[in-house]
Amino acid sequence: MAEKTYFEGYEIGAVRETGGRTITETDIVVHAGHTGDFFPHHLDEEFARKGPFGRRIAHGTMLVAIGIGLTAGRVNEAAFAYGYDKVRFIRPVFIGDTIRTRVTVLEKVIDAKNPRRGRVTERCEILNQRSEIVVLVDQILMVERRPDAQ
Amino acid sequence: MAEKTYFEGYEIGAVRETGGRTITETDIVVHAGHTGDFFPHHLDEEFARKGPFGRRIAHGTMLVAIGIGLTAGRVNEAAFAYGYDKVRFIRPVFIGDTIRTRVTVLEKVIDAKNPRRGRVTERCEILNQRSEIVVLVDQILMVERRPDAQ
Amino acid sequence: MAEKTYFEGYEIGAVRETGGRTITETDIVVHAGHTGDFFPHHLDEEFARKGPFGRRIAHGTMLVAIGIGLTAGRVNEAAFAYGYDKVRFIRPVFIGDTIRTRVTVLEKVIDAKNPRRGRVTERCEILNQRSEIVVLVDQILMVERRPDAQ
Amino acid sequence: MAEKTYFEGYEIGAVRETGGRTITETDIVVHAGHTGDFFPHHLDEEFARKGPFGRRIAHGTMLVAIGIGLTAGRVNEAAFAYGYDKVRFIRPVFIGDTIRTRVTVLEKVIDAKNPRRGRVTERCEILNQRSEIVVLVDQILMVERRPDAQ
Amino acid sequence: MAEKTYFEGYEIGAVRETGGRTITETDIVVHAGHTGDFFPHHLDEEFARKGPFGRRIAHGTMLVAIGIGLTAGRVNEAAFAYGYDKVRFIRPVFIGDTIRTRVTVLEKVIDAKNPRRGRVTERCEILNQRSEIVVLVDQILMVERRPDAQ
Amino acid sequence: MAEKTYFEGYEIGAVRETGGRTITETDIVVHAGHTGDFFPHHLDEEFARKGPFGRRIAHGTMLVAIGIGLTAGRVNEAAFAYGYDKVRFIRPVFIGDTIRTRVTVLEKVIDAKNPRRGRVTERCEILNQRSEIVVLVDQILMVERRPDAQ
Repeated sequence: MAEKTYFEGYEIGAVRETGGRTITETDIVVHAGHTGDFFPHHLDEEFARKGPFGRRIAHGTMLVAIGIGLTAGRVNEAAFAYGYDKVRFIRPVFIGDTIRTRVTVLEKVIDAKNPRRGRVTERCEILNQRSEIVVLVDQILMVERRPDAQ
Repeated sequence: MAEKTYFEGYEIGAVRETGGRTITETDIVVHAGHTGDFFPHHLDEEFARKGPFGRRIAHGTMLVAIGIGLTAGRVNEAAFAYGYDKVRFIRPVFIGDTIRTRVTVLEKVIDAKNPRRGRVTERCEILNQRSEIVVLVDQILMVERRPDAQ
Repeated sequence: MAEKTYFEGYEIGAVRETGGRTITETDIVVHAGHTGDFFPHHLDEEFARKGPFGRRIAHGTMLVAIGIGLTAGRVNEAAFAYGYDKVRFIRPVFIGDTIRTRVTVLEKVIDAKNPRRGRVTERCEILNQRSEIVVLVDQILMVERRPDAQ
Repeated sequence: MAEKTYFEGYEIGAVRETGGRTITETDIVVHAGHTGDFFPHHLDEEFARKGPFGRRIAHGTMLVAIGIGLTAGRVNEAAFAYGYDKVRFIRPVFIGDTIRTRVTVLEKVIDAKNPRRGRVTERCEILNQRSEIVVLVDQILMVERRPDAQ
Repeated sequence: MAEKTYFEGYEIGAVRETGGRTITETDIVVHAGHTGDFFPHHLDEEFARKGPFGRRIAHGTMLVAIGIGLTAGRVNEAAFAYGYDKVRFIRPVFIGDTIRTRVTVLEKVIDAKNPRRGRVTERCEILNQRSEIVVLVDQILMVERRPDAQ
Repeated sequence: MAEKTYFEGYEIGAVRETGGRTITETDIVVHAGHTGDFFPHHLDEEFARKGPFGRRIAHGTMLVAIGIGLTAGRVNEAAFAYGYDKVRFIRPVFIGDTIRTRVTVLEKVIDAKNPRRGRVTERCEILNQRSEIVVLVDQILMVERRPDAQ
């Protein structure tokens, strides 16, 4: 679903939460093949069994991609992703865990170089089924200002 | 290929570069399906043709995942990814572009909480076939110190 | 995005249209592998070149799955798919065509067996980039009635 | 295997049955990514556990695509799929169920507009490992008549 | 389609040919991800352009897998694959080439260890659209003898 | 990681071993779709349960492709794959087994037709987690001789 939310429409502290998605063995195998990252922590059960977690864990790059992907059910046509500040891999995610993303508007500043737009930082906390934060991504959106707002 | 490089083995300013990989339409379709991000900028040629780039562009999350994946040919058993500081989407990547990753050791600090390890920040510049930076990722590794170094 | 629309909320003649998606060679290869349908009309360019369309065409089952999938951006928690009446493969879809789905509420009847719900038939017209109908699916939804409506 | 069966060769009441295929978690994840339908009934185990079936179920569009795909081991060069009448989703299919398709020739009529061909309706009953019908598809084939038959 | 052909039913010199399949960029990207073989000859267009073939080539392991897979439309329940003698990669296959497999019964010998079965060697010549041999596989089948033949 | 090892650098009897990879249900489903080989031994749990192994087994073509793929972490720029002599499918591989490849330099001969290169035969033994050989592949590499060696 497309919509248009201007910089002025972002309210600091506003929170929304996506639906959930269960991380499957398929996701891990597909991600390895998609990225070429075949590290044994993700793909070798014998190796992983002897490691600190006792089993295979999901790739960090996958958790960022799926966790951010979960927020993509809603397209803001007035915004584009500028980058991330602070990505932290906090807890491992295992096959069978179910993740969802809680998005909080963290801060907003008018762009110094171009006052017709602003940067909005959204904290994306990727949570597991026990509501523990597994990955944290501070995503920076570049958002158009309302035409009459400048 | 597995290896073991301790914190002391990282030299600030050291640079290495991965091999290349051509970004295909397949990668974009697979990434959309893997993450659920079906934004028209990536998957709707009619929509994209009228946009600022005139054609479909690769997902930012995919460029991070593949760009970091390219560095995964070499596993350092003494390190794990702690997170990223500063991810920037600098230029669009189109179907048929070929990317590679240049990794520079940017800084290293002993971990205040645990002096037996240190944080190493590697700047990963994902480059296209014209050697332009398309995505920048400052990846933070947590690396064991040499057993005799503390 | 989840929502809840009761039987009473469906208005005959109401129309909505999804975003678009370009059908790629990847989609055809993935669909063949997913279903086991490797008919030469879809996968053998030499064979297809001599056929009535002069090139490979998309699978009918794929157009139904993706065309209905395009409508899945919006989940109605009060409804489930009961089936289809009348599916027609009207025009071929080629690699590079962009499809979207226009959904029109066609008819609604209270379920004779269970008056607490009703059947809503939505005509899903899958259109190409020239707005020609390529596939038509009359989808039947079983929808809860409003708690106070019976 | 290709063959050529004319309209006259279809005998009402004739039955054939395909081999089986186990529906895996992989199939569901691939189908979600292929179609963009990430409904929680299919992909969110936590959500599904609380639903009427107590676990994730296969997509209806996937069962149609795989169930019809199972019949594609045999290509009739004298026929093409015209559409479906009556598709019904009768029972849920779970991860680990094994489906096969039983095809019965239901009716045949000469095409009023073009007497050189006829419509053959095949009832495709998709069965699970307990031989229960899970999906029913009445597929309409448009079949050439025998050259000497008109 | 399943069938049962005993050792006695294989006639030396008998030839059959499969249908064709166009090798796509998708197949190469999927194969790389499936096997972890991301050699630049297959995935880096910039690298491949400067190589002996001037463009990306298909993986040898993929040509064996798809070329043998093309023969799998027919299952002989009385046989299983014992191995291959002599696999040769004769010509490169490029994106857009269409391959098919010609199978010739080359030789048959009763198994010395178990006279109730025999080895049948089938020469599988994988051909491109110009009928040039691109890969040759001598596949050895272990086949049951006819119950009354011993 | 790329390197350059000339014919003279291969030492008969030298052994190396790759990392491991767990064979998942996903790999089997992906391989079936990639190759079109939907034999019930691989994809139909009901069928396989009654067979000699009591469950689904991995495709031989997949084990060759993944087993050889495991050795692809190291690219020798002075070599290319000429073919295989002797491929044997020795033991079945089941979902959940973990394979790795042990490579032994078996023999080397200067090419009679072109004395500037030689054939090196590497025995690739694909092992399971109990170190049993499951597939054996004698791979022939064509390797450049050292410029000063002729």
